[in-house]
Amino acid sequence: MTEASPHALRNLPIGIAATGTRTEHDSMGSIEVPADRYWGAQTQRSLKHFAIGADRMPLAVYRAYAIVKKAAAMVNAEAGHLPAWKAAAIIRAADEAINGEFDDHFPLFVYQTGSGTQSNMNINEVLANRASQLLGGAIGSKAPVHPNDDLNLAQSSNDTFPTAMHIATIDALDGQLLPNATALAAVIDAKAQAWLDIPKTGRTHLQDAVPLTVGQEWSGYAHQLRTALARIDACKPELYQLAAGGTAVGTGITAWPGFSAAIAGQIASLTGEPYVTAPNKFAAQASLDGLVATMAAIRGLAVACLKVANDMRWLASGPRCGIGELILPENEPGSSIMPGKVNPTQCEAMVMVCIQVIGDDNAVAFAGSQGNFELNAMRPLIINNILRACRNLADACATLNRFSVAGTTLNRARIDDQLGRSLMLVTALTPEIGYDRAAAVAHHAEAENLTLREAAIAYGGIDGATFDRIVDPARLVGTGLSGA
Amino acid sequence: MTEASPHALRNLPIGIAATGTRTEHDSMGSIEVPADRYWGAQTQRSLKHFAIGADRMPLAVYRAYAIVKKAAAMVNAEAGHLPAWKAAAIIRAADEAINGEFDDHFPLFVYQTGSGTQSNMNINEVLANRASQLLGGAIGSKAPVHPNDDLNLAQSSNDTFPTAMHIATIDALDGQLLPNATALAAVIDAKAQAWLDIPKTGRTHLQDAVPLTVGQEWSGYAHQLRTALARIDACKPELYQLAAGGTAVGTGITAWPGFSAAIAGQIASLTGEPYVTAPNKFAAQASLDGLVATMAAIRGLAVACLKVANDMRWLASGPRCGIGELILPENEPGSSIMPGKVNPTQCEAMVMVCIQVIGDDNAVAFAGSQGNFELNAMRPLIINNILRACRNLADACATLNRFSVAGTTLNRARIDDQLGRSLMLVTALTPEIGYDRAAAVAHHAEAENLTLREAAIAYGGIDGATFDRIVDPARLVGTGLSGA
Amino acid sequence: MTEASPHALRNLPIGIAATGTRTEHDSMGSIEVPADRYWGAQTQRSLKHFAIGADRMPLAVYRAYAIVKKAAAMVNAEAGHLPAWKAAAIIRAADEAINGEFDDHFPLFVYQTGSGTQSNMNINEVLANRASQLLGGAIGSKAPVHPNDDLNLAQSSNDTFPTAMHIATIDALDGQLLPNATALAAVIDAKAQAWLDIPKTGRTHLQDAVPLTVGQEWSGYAHQLRTALARIDACKPELYQLAAGGTAVGTGITAWPGFSAAIAGQIASLTGEPYVTAPNKFAAQASLDGLVATMAAIRGLAVACLKVANDMRWLASGPRCGIGELILPENEPGSSIMPGKVNPTQCEAMVMVCIQVIGDDNAVAFAGSQGNFELNAMRPLIINNILRACRNLADACATLNRFSVAGTTLNRARIDDQLGRSLMLVTALTPEIGYDRAAAVAHHAEAENLTLREAAIAYGGIDGATFDRIVDPARLVGTGLSGA
Amino acid sequence: MTEASPHALRNLPIGIAATGTRTEHDSMGSIEVPADRYWGAQTQRSLKHFAIGADRMPLAVYRAYAIVKKAAAMVNAEAGHLPAWKAAAIIRAADEAINGEFDDHFPLFVYQTGSGTQSNMNINEVLANRASQLLGGAIGSKAPVHPNDDLNLAQSSNDTFPTAMHIATIDALDGQLLPNATALAAVIDAKAQAWLDIPKTGRTHLQDAVPLTVGQEWSGYAHQLRTALARIDACKPELYQLAAGGTAVGTGITAWPGFSAAIAGQIASLTGEPYVTAPNKFAAQASLDGLVATMAAIRGLAVACLKVANDMRWLASGPRCGIGELILPENEPGSSIMPGKVNPTQCEAMVMVCIQVIGDDNAVAFAGSQGNFELNAMRPLIINNILRACRNLADACATLNRFSVAGTTLNRARIDDQLGRSLMLVTALTPEIGYDRAAAVAHHAEAENLTLREAAIAYGGIDGATFDRIVDPARLVGTGLSGA
Repeated sequence: MTEASPHALRNLPIGIAATGTRTEHDSMGSIEVPADRYWGAQTQRSLKHFAIGADRMPLAVYRAYAIVKKAAAMVNAEAGHLPAWKAAAIIRAADEAINGEFDDHFPLFVYQTGSGTQSNMNINEVLANRASQLLGGAIGSKAPVHPNDDLNLAQSSNDTFPTAMHIATIDALDGQLLPNATALAAVIDAKAQAWLDIPKTGRTHLQDAVPLTVGQEWSGYAHQLRTALARIDACKPELYQLAAGGTAVGTGITAWPGFSAAIAGQIASLTGEPYVTAPNKFAAQASLDGLVATMAAIRGLAVACLKVANDMRWLASGPRCGIGELILPENEPGSSIMPGKVNPTQCEAMVMVCIQVIGDDNAVAFAGSQGNFELNAMRPLIINNILRACRNLADACATLNRFSVAGTTLNRARIDDQLGRSLMLVTALTPEIGYDRAAAVAHHAEAENLTLREAAIAYGGIDGATFDRIVDPARLVGTGLSGA
Repeated sequence: MTEASPHALRNLPIGIAATGTRTEHDSMGSIEVPADRYWGAQTQRSLKHFAIGADRMPLAVYRAYAIVKKAAAMVNAEAGHLPAWKAAAIIRAADEAINGEFDDHFPLFVYQTGSGTQSNMNINEVLANRASQLLGGAIGSKAPVHPNDDLNLAQSSNDTFPTAMHIATIDALDGQLLPNATALAAVIDAKAQAWLDIPKTGRTHLQDAVPLTVGQEWSGYAHQLRTALARIDACKPELYQLAAGGTAVGTGITAWPGFSAAIAGQIASLTGEPYVTAPNKFAAQASLDGLVATMAAIRGLAVACLKVANDMRWLASGPRCGIGELILPENEPGSSIMPGKVNPTQCEAMVMVCIQVIGDDNAVAFAGSQGNFELNAMRPLIINNILRACRNLADACATLNRFSVAGTTLNRARIDDQLGRSLMLVTALTPEIGYDRAAAVAHHAEAENLTLREAAIAYGGIDGATFDRIVDPARLVGTGLSGA
Repeated sequence: MTEASPHALRNLPIGIAATGTRTEHDSMGSIEVPADRYWGAQTQRSLKHFAIGADRMPLAVYRAYAIVKKAAAMVNAEAGHLPAWKAAAIIRAADEAINGEFDDHFPLFVYQTGSGTQSNMNINEVLANRASQLLGGAIGSKAPVHPNDDLNLAQSSNDTFPTAMHIATIDALDGQLLPNATALAAVIDAKAQAWLDIPKTGRTHLQDAVPLTVGQEWSGYAHQLRTALARIDACKPELYQLAAGGTAVGTGITAWPGFSAAIAGQIASLTGEPYVTAPNKFAAQASLDGLVATMAAIRGLAVACLKVANDMRWLASGPRCGIGELILPENEPGSSIMPGKVNPTQCEAMVMVCIQVIGDDNAVAFAGSQGNFELNAMRPLIINNILRACRNLADACATLNRFSVAGTTLNRARIDDQLGRSLMLVTALTPEIGYDRAAAVAHHAEAENLTLREAAIAYGGIDGATFDRIVDPARLVGTGLSGA
Repeated sequence: MTEASPHALRNLPIGIAATGTRTEHDSMGSIEVPADRYWGAQTQRSLKHFAIGADRMPLAVYRAYAIVKKAAAMVNAEAGHLPAWKAAAIIRAADEAINGEFDDHFPLFVYQTGSGTQSNMNINEVLANRASQLLGGAIGSKAPVHPNDDLNLAQSSNDTFPTAMHIATIDALDGQLLPNATALAAVIDAKAQAWLDIPKTGRTHLQDAVPLTVGQEWSGYAHQLRTALARIDACKPELYQLAAGGTAVGTGITAWPGFSAAIAGQIASLTGEPYVTAPNKFAAQASLDGLVATMAAIRGLAVACLKVANDMRWLASGPRCGIGELILPENEPGSSIMPGKVNPTQCEAMVMVCIQVIGDDNAVAFAGSQGNFELNAMRPLIINNILRACRNLADACATLNRFSVAGTTLNRARIDDQLGRSLMLVTALTPEIGYDRAAAVAHHAEAENLTLREAAIAYGGIDGATFDRIVDPARLVGTGLSGA
């Protein structure tokens, strides 16, 4: 293609050298848009009509959407439905969007049309204007590249928005949540290994119980996290199923035969992830069940993290008037009024994040149930919650890890002291003297402020040597991290 | 063993021929219990102190617990920790419990100790008294079979209660929820097949959209249900992991080496399900994450069922002033005041069940996050919600299936009429005349009350023959149930 | 009226001397019902079609409904729309229902038609059959008293079911929840008074903080409960507004002018509560917002109770390896394996109840939002949750009160010991030496294991006498229960 | 005060003319902060350790906090605890903060310490540095105005953060939510008045029911909204109670006698709102129950708005294949693929906002229950959700009002047509011919496709004149907006 070709791509930097407004058109008429923005009439209408709250459609959705638009252009061109020169311009523009270069051109709010159509048109308009610009066309002219006829070719919002939701979710899981939570689990695991042989008093119902090792306790935390992560991983196959190709209601109207499989394959190729076309397009567009399940799995991680963070702050409580077994790093003064106070703030932040995730999950399930006929029109709410939960929980895992777990140490004196005082070691005597007699020993010890050994000899019919043989915490905790 | 043996099992029917009360003892002293009940002191104390609400611990938990007790007796005996004659009596008693013969002897409330200890002691006491009775011992004497030393041998509530929870949940899934929901999906699938070729107007945002077939719409319902069922199935491997053997805090204190694997194997053998010992006992006792995940999967089915039931009642709305495409069976008069009114009551019942499941799931997640240290003490709440959700949703699937879906028929006249009136068939023209011109055609048709064909010829620059070739609903819906 | 009068009430005991089944009729035809039951065709159809789960429509709803039916009969008769002799029979039957004598005749499930029509027809049928019986008519003949034309006169389920919901909720609040929670608050208040002058270490972020008295801490609990109760009380005016008279859609079709006000006044007279007719019948029947608000207020009490119960169990944690400030009554052995263990089981039961209430409230809000047009068809779910929450929380307040709070005592030695060890008394020095220097004192004390006094003298530039004057816990806690 | 006075306020514009970083100090040592920011060491530490998610502490919290700081300076100076010249500088700085001039200096994240201490120190540091600057002191020197000793004088985060939460919530209610929702109710009311006399078919269970007028239906919406608003208003008295003065744990340690009442009075004076000191400081700091109740009331409005928005979109469904009674304004093209499609997008946005509010409320209740001892450390989560809910719902009310409700018109032809077709007018005949016969009439009409009039004459034993007299929709709807 020579330079003179009308179809050659200009090497133009991103940007529109204009001020004030320009007039854009859509099927409802004309409207003024800021002259230096790439968006068009429908984006502008949405901005005007949906100025609701502070939440904007996450940029990650547009990045994912740009991949969809790029893939569509590629397969449409390859199949002969889109001129190669148009496709080239669209692909260039989509690559720029994927690189984040149009982030200032995606201004829409989360609370908009429930199908996400306005965000679909936002990216259609931006890429059409940019592609037209690259081809020498006038911004706003819809020529040579049209936001509907070219950018939306063989597509609808109804199929492509959930496609972008799936891609954005996979990215958030793989790019944020899974690595950060995995790293947290690894550090917890390292603690478990390091503290494998240090016995401590166990606690059930918050009450003193038989001993285990610190490492065993932490191995439980690690196991909870790893299992939660595995559950999240197990959601991916559903997310790999893409609605693209179903177009308006799932039948694929306006799309050419083979488009569904082609675009899924192209997206797989572009992303390196095993995307496939969804086996039933009607379910894929009328429901968001796979995303509801993913959110539930994220919530499962939150449930586990909340338990771990709670344990950490209770085990570190004190320093003098609480349990005091753990010493958490001091990152900041804890109190504006109490000098020298240090608080388990990383744990608190994690707890709050987890509670928010549980609430957000509730909203997602509600919204997921509210589809009607061929569409679930609660999509923006659902993707906003999922991406927010991924990021919040990912970040909280990272800060808890770096600023608290990694630097946590043990107060060995306290641990040993409490282990020695617990009466529940009496449990070890039950195979020898029976439950009822052992209970009497414990009650006497508490009532008369005796050590367990004293009480066992006085009331348990057991001699000191036998006691010492049986009631050996190090032996009672068994071996290994996984328990019995 | 001769009849004279003190260890021979008497052939005694279930029952205690006594009236009034008898005195039972535990480590806190003596207490009167009804003389004709098998339970003992600790059950009685719980009854007295926890008369909260109407919810009783589900009998399914005790059935599952009886399996645990039976398996424990078998492996304890085999390993030489329990005399064979005691084991024989316990096994007999446990079998009776499994058969439901002691249902009147498990009276405890859901809201009790958070570990489920009181229900563990309830079954321990009942089986100990029954086993002692079978061996000629006196009820209440704890001899020859003791509720703690024999029935709880190598066990704690902390490990066995979650073991029973898992077994009861698997039973509820396999015995109630999965078969009933699968049957519902099958009937929906049959409808999809039967109605495969009947085109109708699609609806997105509740607004008229391009056509699909009735069968395609219903194939989406079936797909949603089947996928939800697959997610529930995927929870089973975690449920097959049993905490038994961890005893008090996961270390297995008082249990003999090998007990964990042995009891899991024995339970697998008794139930025919692939139960194994949990890989980390600390997590298995301090969390209930696998059950939280299972409840989330059940909720996923509720989310799907709610959508289907809502669609059904809206599609049947009318009969004259609504959508009116479906005709649901008339099972009862709908109104106490409006004669002849028929309402979508099965759908309403399903919607209510689904909303309750979503709320119950929220409680389960909250409770699942509230473990502390070596125990999650919210167990009774969690198992009560899971079993209730299984049953409610299972039953609602069955009644919706039998009394509504199975007898649902189509109002073909209405479907055809509405299909013919929808303007959205204009979409098929966009590849021919472009989006903007097609939009103008639709607007003119609506504004001037024209048919789409009339408007397309007048404003779309298209002739009648072309219109008829392109705008053919039967062709526009594509082929097959799965969509594009 | 002489005995010979056909309109005289027979003195017949409740009961139908028949076995097998009898045939009842409704607008859909005939159906067999158990011959000894008072219910009719529509109840039987519901039983057949809605066998969902274990939850039955609460009897409290029928008691309330019987009041509605009695009031309707009275005002219908007074206004000349119902013969006095029919009214007399209906009133007699309604009184019997109010006394609980037909409890076995109200078998329907919660998950039924969303309007509650089936339960309305259940009571209509039972009272019609009973009234007919009292008048010498044949059971099942609908004569002389007809379940629709007489029992439902001037009524619809759409207006009377929410009327019964309001009455049943007021009863549950006044009869169960408010008195029990008020009693709990009173006992907590008494503890606060008794412990007014006992200083202890405060705790914020679970960490040692400046002192307060035990009584002050408990005064906060009492204040939380009392405020929560006041919020519940504030819901009553909305509950006193009754939908009755709106009939099918709020317009009052088939009701006579003045019926709305008359029946509300009659219900007020029968109950002694200030019931009035709802100011807008369309809202009263299409929404259940007043009940949603009431459930939220009940949840508010649960939020407060959860905090109190959590504090109690943590403050009692130990006995040796936790905080150990409180000694809760020992009501039962705590563990099946650990002899002598005592657990905060009443607190755990309360926590579980509160979590369930929070989940149930979530379901109620969801359901409350799902009204369509002239009816919210999620009523059975909502009333079931509200009545269950009232009872569970009321009972949990009673058992926590009686079996835990009332008998709770202080571990004074522990309290004093911990108070003396806390470093946060350093806060009292800040007006003297500034925040920064005080922080240094605290850090030195912790690092070098000094008492605060030693560190203050060594690093704070303060002499012993000044320290002793300023750092006096008894003075630092201020005076009175309400704080600063 | 002469210009030469060291205590005179300099007339310095806001800003720090410096680049790079400067060193700030706190009790944990020194740290570099951006040289052009007013914040200090503790803000910087929080920024470093809590980079979690995208949510920042809402600026409204800092505006409210600045009022608290201003009021504290005023009463501290008046009582002689703070030099007047220091107070003057603090007041000037606080006024600048109230005007939003330091918005770029409040960068902290929502997920931080659960007490809000870091945001308290943020404003303390900013105002101290600004006040010191105004007095000629060096930024970062803490002189002459100290962030703790002066800005936090007689205060703790524990009492002042909830004080700021209350003020910010009142502002959000009065400034955003209440006016916008009231305006929406007013427009709905105007519609109700305008459409008072237009009869339409009612719908219950989504099925055709007896008639009411369009205005009556809308009067129900207005009533729901107004009642929800009244419930929100009723939360204010609790919000007017301020914790300030309780300091660290409620006892008022470090605060002077009378401070509590003085600062509440001063805040009342500054804001014109009836703030008072909280009657129990322990509850005020250890719980956030008043805010939990406020969030529940906001949720109540969401429940009502969801119903209204759902009704609107269903009543507008079609245009040809749905109910089609309402015509909503067309604000934007509805579909990227279906030309001419118009969707109820404002309603969808409102539904999503409402669902999010319901989920957020769930998180708030959970968090509200998680206080421990003298502090609820879930405050940032709670205030973030409340302020977000206020804004989202306020904005959604505004856009729904302006872009949908205000321009909604009726499709009179459709309304009339459907009214004429409904069979449920048969209800009007029941007082004449009884329920059973009326039911038969309706069934015959439907089965034989007769008009109701035809069927009534043929099967109801009624003549045409009687029919016409009784079955007159205009008469059946009664009079007035409030119903029966």
